[in-house]
Amino acid sequence: MPNPTAAFLVIGDEILSGRTREANVQVLATALAAAGIDLVEVRVIRDGLEPIVTAVNALRSTHDQVFTSGGIGPTHDDVTADSVAAAFGVPIDVRDDARAMLEELVRRRGVPMAEGILRMARIPDGAALIGNKLSGAPGFSLGNVHVMAGVPTIFAAMVEELVPTLPGGAPTVSGSLVVERGEAYFAAALAEFARTHDDLTIGSYPFRDDDRFAVEVVVRGRDRVRVDEAVARLAVVLNEA
Amino acid sequence: MPNPTAAFLVIGDEILSGRTREANVQVLATALAAAGIDLVEVRVIRDGLEPIVTAVNALRSTHDQVFTSGGIGPTHDDVTADSVAAAFGVPIDVRDDARAMLEELVRRRGVPMAEGILRMARIPDGAALIGNKLSGAPGFSLGNVHVMAGVPTIFAAMVEELVPTLPGGAPTVSGSLVVERGEAYFAAALAEFARTHDDLTIGSYPFRDDDRFAVEVVVRGRDRVRVDEAVARLAVVLNEA
Repeated sequence: MPNPTAAFLVIGDEILSGRTREANVQVLATALAAAGIDLVEVRVIRDGLEPIVTAVNALRSTHDQVFTSGGIGPTHDDVTADSVAAAFGVPIDVRDDARAMLEELVRRRGVPMAEGILRMARIPDGAALIGNKLSGAPGFSLGNVHVMAGVPTIFAAMVEELVPTLPGGAPTVSGSLVVERGEAYFAAALAEFARTHDDLTIGSYPFRDDDRFAVEVVVRGRDRVRVDEAVARLAVVLNEA
Repeated sequence: MPNPTAAFLVIGDEILSGRTREANVQVLATALAAAGIDLVEVRVIRDGLEPIVTAVNALRSTHDQVFTSGGIGPTHDDVTADSVAAAFGVPIDVRDDARAMLEELVRRRGVPMAEGILRMARIPDGAALIGNKLSGAPGFSLGNVHVMAGVPTIFAAMVEELVPTLPGGAPTVSGSLVVERGEAYFAAALAEFARTHDDLTIGSYPFRDDDRFAVEVVVRGRDRVRVDEAVARLAVVLNEA
């Protein structure tokens, strides 16, 4: 049976402008691989109602799960919650359970309440809250769309909370070997190996380490034994190619 | 006049599996901002004919420029050139000018020629080659689609070669200030400021630096003086909010 599929929508003016290097894809990708959910697409889009509505509706109809990061804070450029509500055509307002989490946060930190804090309690009708250990401001799940914070530490805490609760499949396992030759010299042997092992995904990734050019060949699959055997056999095959 | 728009398509099984952290978006985003080309979307997709054809055709019809990274090497999982040719419905084969570049590379490095190296000379009909200072393996531009290497040093060299040749617009300039308060406490003042400065984009990005929570407020626009004035005024406004 194929694994469930997922897409990740990064709401990220700060990524698209070059200001910030994206930091959440790898955290989510690693958690999903372990849960047996196949991440098949990532999109980074602007912080705006129209781009978010368009992308959410395109992705939620074509993937089993959709995750978003960013845009759920208290400022004017945080438009994710309203946009997701609009994508689903449901109302959004301050909700008592979310407000209680934020009041608890304010109490714990000993800081004053503010209108901006209550703005983070705006949750679309029908959504379930996603808590996290670090912050009182919740994310939420609406249908198959999971809306999370953009700040990397909080995003990671929400992923840890959410992903184990989702229906998963067979975890992806991988192994690799480093080949210290140009990949062109073993490309034919590698292609033949991939053709005869079509339950595995075999990737070839050149890299430069100081002045050394080398290639990491990565084998991915769902069976630990089968992946390890393939890596061992590849070491021989590529040595002889 | 609005700036030209761009999308960036990352062909990246290794990103989607969590193995590798994406490294090219920030390089391209920074170069495009300086050239006055607005990067409005990034997609990371799988190394496969069907996902690449679908994404290339969706993005090239909706953006002025499309850039891709990854999948132009010599191995079986490098399917970008064939997929872009398929997206445009044009033939692809080894081309003499690309072959000459690779023969020169082989001569310079004193290594033997191989069939896998010639595979990198497969260029769609009608494409213009993109050279780079680091590697003899060319990228190519076909219509408004620019196909580049995934290895970060080579990608950066191709961006440096290509982007200045494209029609640009007004470069994006930015300035920022750090506010050492929770953003909820100045959200209303910031929203009002953004509303009355609608030629500028104002983003608010919380971060944690050791144990300090703070917010970077970033102002983006096209006029250096106007951006600097806005940052100076914001420092006063947010201090009083």
